[in-house]
Amino acid sequence: MLKLIIGNKNYSSWSLRPWLLLKQAQIPFEEVLIPLYEAGSRERTLAYSPTGKVPCLIDGDIVVWDSLAISEYLAECFPERQLWPAAMADRAEARAIAAEMHAGFTYLRGQMPMNLRRERPRLSKAPEVEQDIARIISIWSALRQRHAGAGDFLFGSFSVADAMYAPVVTRFKSYDVKLPALAQQYADTVLALPAMQEWYAAGRAESWRIAVSELDD
Amino acid sequence: MLKLIIGNKNYSSWSLRPWLLLKQAQIPFEEVLIPLYEAGSRERTLAYSPTGKVPCLIDGDIVVWDSLAISEYLAECFPERQLWPAAMADRAEARAIAAEMHAGFTYLRGQMPMNLRRERPRLSKAPEVEQDIARIISIWSALRQRHAGAGDFLFGSFSVADAMYAPVVTRFKSYDVKLPALAQQYADTVLALPAMQEWYAAGRAESWRIAVSELDD
Repeated sequence: MLKLIIGNKNYSSWSLRPWLLLKQAQIPFEEVLIPLYEAGSRERTLAYSPTGKVPCLIDGDIVVWDSLAISEYLAECFPERQLWPAAMADRAEARAIAAEMHAGFTYLRGQMPMNLRRERPRLSKAPEVEQDIARIISIWSALRQRHAGAGDFLFGSFSVADAMYAPVVTRFKSYDVKLPALAQQYADTVLALPAMQEWYAAGRAESWRIAVSELDD
Repeated sequence: MLKLIIGNKNYSSWSLRPWLLLKQAQIPFEEVLIPLYEAGSRERTLAYSPTGKVPCLIDGDIVVWDSLAISEYLAECFPERQLWPAAMADRAEARAIAAEMHAGFTYLRGQMPMNLRRERPRLSKAPEVEQDIARIISIWSALRQRHAGAGDFLFGSFSVADAMYAPVVTRFKSYDVKLPALAQQYADTVLALPAMQEWYAAGRAESWRIAVSELDD
C-alpha cells in the first residue's frame, strides 16, 4: 500500500496537498505523521526522504518527495482518476497555477503561515502580501467563472490544482481575509469537503506547537 | 510556431531552463527576449503572461507560464522526444529533483544569483549555502554513478531534470565552487553543449545590467 509521510496537520501546508489529493481520489494509503521541529524530527524524516522534508510518498522501492512530484506520480499511476483536467488547455493552465503556487507566493507564505487553530486578522498589511492575495483571488474568480457549469472546483472536478491551493483556503480563513463572492464560494466548497474537515479536526487536536508559525506571540 | 518569452540571458535562470530544453529536444520555437528590471519590462511581460514573469510559452491560444509547467506541457506535446526518463522509477525521481530545484535551494539562489559574466569566488560562506551546494553535489554524484552506462546526463539522456539544474551549473562556474570529480564532469558536459555555449555568448554580450544580481558592488 502507498505510504505518505506528512508533518503536523495544524501547520504542514505541503503535507496537506498530497494527503487531500489521495483522499479526494479515494486512493488507499497509509499515513505516517512526523511532528516537525521536535527533537529527532529531521532524522525520522531522513529515514524516508533524502531531503529530510515532508511530504514524501513511498510506493514499494519508489520514493517520491515534494508535493508536486507526488501529484504527477499519482496522476500517472491512476490515470482513471483524472487528477489533472482532461482537456489539454485546461491541464496546461492547471499545471501553470500549480507550479505558480509551488515556487511563488513567498510573501503570503511567510506572513500567513498555515495554522488551522488561528482565527484572527492578519498582522502584515505589506503591499507584497496584498499582491499575493489579489493574484490568488483573480485566479480563483476567473476559473470559477469559466468552469461554473462543470462542477464546483477550479476546473470543474477536483484536480491537483485544488489540492495545491487548499492550504491557502485555510490561510484566508485563519487570517480573516475578506474575499469577493465567487472566491469565497470556492473557499467554502473546499472547506466543506469531508476530507478537509477530517484534516482540520486532527490538526486542531494536536498538542505540538511550532513557534515560528505562531505570529501573534 | 511555439513562442518562448524569456528574460536577459545573462541573469534569467528561469528562462534558461525551457530554452535549453527546447534546443536540446530540437523543437523549433521563436524567442522573444524582454530585458528585466528596465522601464516597461513588467508591462511587456504582462502582455504575454498573467503573472508578469518569464518564462512563458505561447502555443496558439494556450499560454503556459512557469518553467516546470512548460516542461510538462512540452513533454506531453512531444512524447517521442522523451523529455522525462522512460522508466517509471527514474521519471518519478527526475520529477522529484526537478520540483526540489523549483521550490527549494533558496539560499543558493539568493546568495549566488545567475550571472554568466561573473567569475569570482562566492562571497557568502553561510552554512545554509554550503548545505544547498552539498545537496546538489550529492544528487548529481549519485545519479551520474547510477546512470554512467546510459549516457552523460543525470538520467543518461538529457531530460527536464538536466534543464532544471543547468542554471546551477553556471552558478558553480561563476562563483568558483569546487566540485568532486563526478559532479565536475557532469557540469563540464552541460557547459559544453552547443546550446549552452550559444546562450552564454548571447548573455555575456548583453549590455543590460541588473544591480541586485551583481553581488560584488
